Amino acid sequence: MAADVTTDQTDGASGPAPGTQRPGGRTARTRASVLEAALAELVEHGYADTRIDRIADRAGVAATTVYRRWGSLENIVVDLADHLAVSISLGAAATLEEDLRAVARAVVALHGDPAHRAWLRAMVSAAAGSAKAQGALADVLAHRRELTSVAVAEALARGEVPSGTDPHEVIRATVAPLYLRMYITGEPVGEPEADRAAAAAALAARAGLYVTGTG
Amino acid sequence: MAADVTTDQTDGASGPAPGTQRPGGRTARTRASVLEAALAELVEHGYADTRIDRIADRAGVAATTVYRRWGSLENIVVDLADHLAVSISLGAAATLEEDLRAVARAVVALHGDPAHRAWLRAMVSAAAGSAKAQGALADVLAHRRELTSVAVAEALARGEVPSGTDPHEVIRATVAPLYLRMYITGEPVGEPEADRAAAAAALAARAGLYVTGTG
Repeated sequence: MAADVTTDQTDGASGPAPGTQRPGGRTARTRASVLEAALAELVEHGYADTRIDRIADRAGVAATTVYRRWGSLENIVVDLADHLAVSISLGAAATLEEDLRAVARAVVALHGDPAHRAWLRAMVSAAAGSAKAQGALADVLAHRRELTSVAVAEALARGEVPSGTDPHEVIRATVAPLYLRMYITGEPVGEPEADRAAAAAALAARAGLYVTGTG
Repeated sequence: MAADVTTDQTDGASGPAPGTQRPGGRTARTRASVLEAALAELVEHGYADTRIDRIADRAGVAATTVYRRWGSLENIVVDLADHLAVSISLGAAATLEEDLRAVARAVVALHGDPAHRAWLRAMVSAAAGSAKAQGALADVLAHRRELTSVAVAEALARGEVPSGTDPHEVIRATVAPLYLRMYITGEPVGEPEADRAAAAAALAARAGLYVTGTG
């Protein structure tokens, strides 16, 4: 089954950004232009070689405007998290493994999107050297785990996994082998890796390995 | 059981480096000083804020010497891979899970070493933006998987896992949840996470989930 995953490259999905004059106003439009330009530059040049002045050129604004608003490339990359909001809809699967397969395939599908891949690479690169970027990346991934933890909640309700199973641990186990390949070793990922990761996480969850705390 | 893991911060564990005049000669000593200085700077400042001129100062050599030999901080970080050779000895464990637990705890123990952690963070950061650094990081991790795949070879010999089980996939599954926390989300890791990852990987391996190819 294919995962229903969409990248929502619009502005304001999570409310007006700081500094927005009004929805759709000039400041909001500038923000959207700069973020789109930053994404295009990241895809073309990668994080290490992306320059704020080229982002400003591409967005048609003064570099000083970009520096005043964001201060650094790292802050732009962090701001892109809201801009690239992802929604993942899990179908009414009959088993945990089926739902986790949808989650794993969604992760692989997002990695196949050049803009999303370039942005996540930038986040991983920035996170390795900055507590702020690492916190932002952790928030993005925690939010995605929250979106997908319904799969585990349903498995709990069905009695498929033992009471006290930690949904976040199940999702972490599902996505970890994919993130290792995508953003650390750079090895290829596809549906076989996604399905294998989902099967392993479902098996371990059913065996009670993700029961944590006193739950 | 504690893993027998050592970080071998000596020079020449993998033979004389390019440009070495003779083992222990002036060039080798310069290389060792610069790599030690780079490690200390990475621990203090992180990859994003480490500067070659400060490394040169600390090593007591001219910055031009460092630039001539390495050209960039990225190349120094890649060169540290040989300098920080790791050896992992697996004991004569009775079960795959026990051996994988030793592997997982060794990974967590290395992360507890500030120098090793700072260097791997630098590698992850560089790898996200550079094919060369990503190749070097992939080589480092493949080498470690090779060192530890004896655990899976023994499980195969015992008939504990099905024929055709891919040792690298088993090790990837063991370490992936740890790398996700250590180098992507920055969440804490300890022995509970190590043991859980080992148990899940052993369970999935016994169930035949890591049988790949036509083996």
